[in-house]
Amino acid sequence: MNLDEYLTYRRELVDKALDDMLPRDDNDATVLNEAMRYSVFAGGKRIRPILAMSAAEVVGAKPESVLPLAVALECVHTYSLIHDDLPAMDNDDVRRGKPTSHKVFGEALAILAGDALLSFAFSVLSSPGAERVYRPDRLLKVVGELAAASGPAKLIAGQVADISCEGKAVDEATVEFIVQNKTAALIRASLTCGATLAGGTREQIEILGTFGELLGTVFQIRDDLLDLEGDAAKLGKAVRKDQDRGKATFPRLLGKEKAKELMRRRLEAALETLKPLGQTAEPLARIGEYVGSRMS
Amino acid sequence: MNLDEYLTYRRELVDKALDDMLPRDDNDATVLNEAMRYSVFAGGKRIRPILAMSAAEVVGAKPESVLPLAVALECVHTYSLIHDDLPAMDNDDVRRGKPTSHKVFGEALAILAGDALLSFAFSVLSSPGAERVYRPDRLLKVVGELAAASGPAKLIAGQVADISCEGKAVDEATVEFIVQNKTAALIRASLTCGATLAGGTREQIEILGTFGELLGTVFQIRDDLLDLEGDAAKLGKAVRKDQDRGKATFPRLLGKEKAKELMRRRLEAALETLKPLGQTAEPLARIGEYVGSRMS
Repeated sequence: MNLDEYLTYRRELVDKALDDMLPRDDNDATVLNEAMRYSVFAGGKRIRPILAMSAAEVVGAKPESVLPLAVALECVHTYSLIHDDLPAMDNDDVRRGKPTSHKVFGEALAILAGDALLSFAFSVLSSPGAERVYRPDRLLKVVGELAAASGPAKLIAGQVADISCEGKAVDEATVEFIVQNKTAALIRASLTCGATLAGGTREQIEILGTFGELLGTVFQIRDDLLDLEGDAAKLGKAVRKDQDRGKATFPRLLGKEKAKELMRRRLEAALETLKPLGQTAEPLARIGEYVGSRMS
Repeated sequence: MNLDEYLTYRRELVDKALDDMLPRDDNDATVLNEAMRYSVFAGGKRIRPILAMSAAEVVGAKPESVLPLAVALECVHTYSLIHDDLPAMDNDDVRRGKPTSHKVFGEALAILAGDALLSFAFSVLSSPGAERVYRPDRLLKVVGELAAASGPAKLIAGQVADISCEGKAVDEATVEFIVQNKTAALIRASLTCGATLAGGTREQIEILGTFGELLGTVFQIRDDLLDLEGDAAKLGKAVRKDQDRGKATFPRLLGKEKAKELMRRRLEAALETLKPLGQTAEPLARIGEYVGSRMS
């Protein structure tokens, strides 16, 4: 398989679905719709939507068949970025190569655009008509997993720990907690929800969940290494900022080499996890390798 | 019926359910759980949960039977208050008689506590086991209505308009837009979701939705009048603040007397709407009268 073509085809599917589904200027909330679209279309690799589509393919469905889920995942991810970048949080001015939402639209609208994207994600999964395409029990399970992954026990718990540990001496368990909750939970949910919506078996869903959890760490360590070593132009965001701020990351805790070693071990374990799925999981394995070696 | 007893009984049910369901300190997110609980338990009349329970009773169910929905509604409402009070929005220091979330926990945690409550609302409606108690298609419909009411076309559109109209000359259509989206949409959804989850007919749900929409205006005008005439101690928040800020409200646009007249007309229409439901809708009628005359 050609990984570039594979990713490009699916990214284009997601981008078109996002453009089709996100609200347009058909009501009085023009500037809100603009703010939502600005951050969603400011770039992004669409990793989570692609993982959901690949998981659906593993269980025998077409990538197009889980597009509402793909859209919901990207909305939740973008909402989390908008809020993370706020002055009260990480106070970041640039993201995906563009000024962050609050720099363009002001703080109030950035908060509200994030809020709107979160609600909208759940709308997409439950809009009238969805239950004619998907089994209601599966949609409900997907809503539940997405709500849990983005909620107080996962994404937000991770973000709270991330902020409160800034500049402090932390241990490995704390960094693991942050990575698992802030990053891995939504990546895991992308895979399990994709497989669930497409009718995967419990065994398939469990394997994909374990893969997603391991891949989440790979993704985060690679992200942290890019903050240390990466090219700001390619990354579309400032580098060495997390380092300067004293963020609790594996590279900061263990040093770059040991963090790379941990990333490699998690990637190997992730690839090993996929073996029972056979040939159908090859794209996921290739995405895993890409996530661990990407330059942006 | 004794309205005080009716409201107290249901408010206690909701408060207990909130206490049972909201996350406790069983993970590392202690301060997050604290912040979520702080705002949820800072007072509040639980009007939306009670309306959901009363709607369920209209269609023949027990109030207890829709408690997860009642909890979800109060979480969405509380999240919207926490974010509305932020310095970047209304910059309110006191709410429900206590310092607002950002005054107690700081801005970052207030934003995150709001975010967490929104996701948590959807978790409550879709948690594993919910589909054994409720029909998945009904739960999914409720998720869809709650997501729509709290999303970019309703609650957030209203909040964006509310903020952007501050201090400006506005027309009646604009004030109507703000009231319908910022306030009435969630009150309407409380009633339709309560009836939907409890298995109401399409006709019953439609009547209750119309009642909710009208009641939403009554609620908001009463709120705006209390801002002008109310007692800060009873209200638990500063008065004349919306007025000083030039918020787009019916009393500011029409004057107090004409706004009161509009409120009375909407209340009468709301009560008229209930007639086909007969005696079972008496509690809703009484709640409507209370909403239009409350002193806090």
